[in-house]
Amino acid sequence: MYRTHTNGQLRAADITKKVTLAGWVQKTRDKGFMVWVDLRDRYGITQLIFDEERTPKEMMATASQLGREFVIQVTGTVIERESKNPNMPTGDIEILVSEITVLNKSLTPPFTIEDETDGGEDLRMKYRYLDIRRKPVRNNLVFRHKVTMAVRNYLSEKEFIEVETPYLIKSTPEGARDFVVPSRMNEGQFYALPQSPQTFKQLLMVGGMDKYFQIVKCFRDEDLRADRQPEFTQIDCEMAFIEQEDILNTFEGLTRHLLKEINGVEIGDFPRMQYDDAMRLYGNDKPDIRFGMRFGELNKVAQHKDFNVFNTAELVVGIAVPGGNSYTRKEIDKLIDWVKRPQVGALGMVYCRVNDDGSYKSSVDKFYDQEDLAKWAEVTGASKGDLICVLSGDTGKVRAQLSALRMELAERLGLRKADEFAPLWVVDFPLLELDEETGHYHAMHHPFTSPKPGQLELLDTNPGDVKANAYDLVLNGNEIGGGSIRIHDKKTQAIMLKHLGFSEEEAKAQFGFLMDAFEYGAPPHGGIAFGLDRLVAILGGQETIRDFIAFPKNNAGRDVMIDAPAPLDTEQLEELHLKLDME
Amino acid sequence: MYRTHTNGQLRAADITKKVTLAGWVQKTRDKGFMVWVDLRDRYGITQLIFDEERTPKEMMATASQLGREFVIQVTGTVIERESKNPNMPTGDIEILVSEITVLNKSLTPPFTIEDETDGGEDLRMKYRYLDIRRKPVRNNLVFRHKVTMAVRNYLSEKEFIEVETPYLIKSTPEGARDFVVPSRMNEGQFYALPQSPQTFKQLLMVGGMDKYFQIVKCFRDEDLRADRQPEFTQIDCEMAFIEQEDILNTFEGLTRHLLKEINGVEIGDFPRMQYDDAMRLYGNDKPDIRFGMRFGELNKVAQHKDFNVFNTAELVVGIAVPGGNSYTRKEIDKLIDWVKRPQVGALGMVYCRVNDDGSYKSSVDKFYDQEDLAKWAEVTGASKGDLICVLSGDTGKVRAQLSALRMELAERLGLRKADEFAPLWVVDFPLLELDEETGHYHAMHHPFTSPKPGQLELLDTNPGDVKANAYDLVLNGNEIGGGSIRIHDKKTQAIMLKHLGFSEEEAKAQFGFLMDAFEYGAPPHGGIAFGLDRLVAILGGQETIRDFIAFPKNNAGRDVMIDAPAPLDTEQLEELHLKLDME
Repeated sequence: MYRTHTNGQLRAADITKKVTLAGWVQKTRDKGFMVWVDLRDRYGITQLIFDEERTPKEMMATASQLGREFVIQVTGTVIERESKNPNMPTGDIEILVSEITVLNKSLTPPFTIEDETDGGEDLRMKYRYLDIRRKPVRNNLVFRHKVTMAVRNYLSEKEFIEVETPYLIKSTPEGARDFVVPSRMNEGQFYALPQSPQTFKQLLMVGGMDKYFQIVKCFRDEDLRADRQPEFTQIDCEMAFIEQEDILNTFEGLTRHLLKEINGVEIGDFPRMQYDDAMRLYGNDKPDIRFGMRFGELNKVAQHKDFNVFNTAELVVGIAVPGGNSYTRKEIDKLIDWVKRPQVGALGMVYCRVNDDGSYKSSVDKFYDQEDLAKWAEVTGASKGDLICVLSGDTGKVRAQLSALRMELAERLGLRKADEFAPLWVVDFPLLELDEETGHYHAMHHPFTSPKPGQLELLDTNPGDVKANAYDLVLNGNEIGGGSIRIHDKKTQAIMLKHLGFSEEEAKAQFGFLMDAFEYGAPPHGGIAFGLDRLVAILGGQETIRDFIAFPKNNAGRDVMIDAPAPLDTEQLEELHLKLDME
Repeated sequence: MYRTHTNGQLRAADITKKVTLAGWVQKTRDKGFMVWVDLRDRYGITQLIFDEERTPKEMMATASQLGREFVIQVTGTVIERESKNPNMPTGDIEILVSEITVLNKSLTPPFTIEDETDGGEDLRMKYRYLDIRRKPVRNNLVFRHKVTMAVRNYLSEKEFIEVETPYLIKSTPEGARDFVVPSRMNEGQFYALPQSPQTFKQLLMVGGMDKYFQIVKCFRDEDLRADRQPEFTQIDCEMAFIEQEDILNTFEGLTRHLLKEINGVEIGDFPRMQYDDAMRLYGNDKPDIRFGMRFGELNKVAQHKDFNVFNTAELVVGIAVPGGNSYTRKEIDKLIDWVKRPQVGALGMVYCRVNDDGSYKSSVDKFYDQEDLAKWAEVTGASKGDLICVLSGDTGKVRAQLSALRMELAERLGLRKADEFAPLWVVDFPLLELDEETGHYHAMHHPFTSPKPGQLELLDTNPGDVKANAYDLVLNGNEIGGGSIRIHDKKTQAIMLKHLGFSEEEAKAQFGFLMDAFEYGAPPHGGIAFGLDRLVAILGGQETIRDFIAFPKNNAGRDVMIDAPAPLDTEQLEELHLKLDME
């Protein structure tokens, strides 16, 4: 062992002890007659002292030549510090060094290893091993470990068994694109990396494992958006002989446990909201309910006048911005510009001030009188001093636009507090979703989700109306988990796949093993999967998942540190029976 | 919830309770006037009873029509059994059923769902979800979960942090073949799946994580031998600021903890053996020391006579088989045939009986007198009643042959007891290994292993003699873990790579990021990786790793259940810029 103690360990009680420490040079202060070194490791920082009265000359020289990030080992005596630092756990002491060994030198790091660094994102990714030395990054990784340990111990105590499912599986055209793996031993054939262990966990239920979980990597070859990773981690869970209510209770229990264990926050029963209500009240299936600004649908109170924009709209909907009447005209114009940005896409915004005397002043006073506007205020819940923002258009689009505005305003108003946690179950999702491009329905969750009892027949006539036994767990405006009760009989699964456009042959080729399994006594079952990266980020009070991944990829799916992906040797390609087909 | 209790839960104290149970029909006994059903789930079996006096007629009919593996839900009253079964935890009670629902029917399973099944390996793999319903398979998976939980909690308590390293990394030609993953977004480029997170865990040490572990899938595209899997699981660990001694102590602690926690076996300090001694005394770098039969090298006492076979051999070596003098001539001939099989490859075997009167009778009495043979007995440690088996030839080959014989005989003699655990550290491995085909040296462990202090210079003159700071943990004749102290400076790493045949450009292209990292203050570090599949199997008293993997692949690397790998759609190949290059 290169040390007797870590750099976070020594206290006043250790004074007079002889100790050996090792770590990195965080910084040195060289006064000529005295040199101080802050020695850092994962556990903390300890101050070393060298002075010309007590330190041999050549050791003084060594000390004054130490560069940032040099790795050193020192032996010395714990002494009391003259000027104590109450902000450091080791701030009462310092080490009077009697021996020093430079274990490794360091080039000057390309950015400072400080809580607030001067390195840009790209540089920090290239030298991620140096970035990890920074306390905020290191703490995120330690935090992630604590969360996964808490998850595993909780589920294990509830008799869930962690079962490893395979990574080399079969490609399925449903859902996102698979990453594939050519098989050398099976010429012309490919494995696929799992987008999730969905079918395997269902087979484990057929196999009688009863309660399964796994913290597992999943892979999706998507065109990357900001903060999406081609590989991500799921807490994947499944239970047999349960109903939706059991899943909700079990995983509400897990989430409550994490909030308490990790964040010290006690939360009672999680509210539940129907998907339709979430869309109506928040324009969004993952509403942030830490704050209000619920949608008020204004069709009835805004489509009786001559304002054609509203009259021709499918939906007229508004929110009341608390205190928004304080916005200047210029600020409101900026807000209008904001909603008109292509990322949001609104054509314009109508607004209405609620003055302190209770009168209204709107951008459409030409069409609407005080009585009309009072109704708008009533529907949106606006009080004196608020600003009502109203958008109109096609229901789907206008909800998304107003939802974006609501979140933006909440951010600006400081209503999205990182240390406040508002979980919410969104339930009764539609089974199918219309793909507007192709005009086809596809599974909103996945093809194994069961419709609500008695709704199977609706599939032929009103496919969009069929509700599923599907649910999402939302935390602070983020979907942290989603799941469903599954189909567990071959007939229903076959009907479902038919409605999703699979021919009988395709269904058999892709999911034959699952449908076969359903013929040998499949129990009722269902489950949920949590996105671990996001869950950890939110529990950590942040929203960027990349900050909680040790070695993330950039938006082009590249690992810039190791420079992957990379070309292969021709020989390797030949062994795999492959040729490049470059344009 | 479909049940109030599991099928392993009810006891005499529950008699008179009304309960609801769900599970699979294990078997039915239909006496006409009475039907018994064994209801099974993960937790146990509970007996249900229907009789014509107390059960409505139509329910009797339902009960008598239940097939094996039907999934049912029953409600009924817990009653005392007339004939109790002391071998079952629920053997004191049975359920008088008042309601029954068939939740799902089952076709007749292709093999019996019993501890001893009639299904062959192939059939059980195709219907793995049914195989998992069998208690021995299920218990293995539950056992695996217990082991991994124990590992994680132990390491976590010792301040190790589990960090997830990426699965989509870069291909390196060193070591086994990589599985590769074509990148759609980076035309003509490929990721590789990790053979181990080796470089990443070293970067975590450079990054100051101090103590890392991960239970992680690894991938090797090898021509599969029996009981090898293309994907396998490692307990991967690394520590900074440590020496070999610290690693040995830490992971001896982990292993001791597992043996106690999982197997209830207390084991003191693990013995340590030098690699050279292991090869000399057991012909093997992973000796099973649950039993003796150590090798005795006989060159000195067997090469002084006219027996040319021995005189021309590099090594003459024997073992004493306890009680082996009881073997008939025919049995010994069979043993000779056994060592001559191509899998072992010996040209013949000399033997020498040690009679009860202390006299010797050998197959080479023509050449050796009683005095000579007495020396053989002395060297091999043979006593009265034993049989000395002697092989000769090239050192490497003959050691492997005699080691195979030793293990086979121990198996036959019942010396390899599944409930006895004999861990052993093998230390001081050679740094390099001569590849007899190419005449080149390659890294015995991997290119990041550090040579023993002061031996770097030997690389130029006697590369085969350089010893490494490398160690294996052996349990009952299996390598369950292996690791090393790593190189942590760029210069040594460059020398090492040069000796392994990397040009400077190749070294930079493959490992540039690691060598760069070493320039920014890399701490001394080292680690170990355990093969989880094998560790679990051995702790479970078995040796076939496949039995401890939920969904294993067969020897052709295929998953016969889901039928993977499989051909890809042409469209998918095009998106990946690939063409098949079939012969």
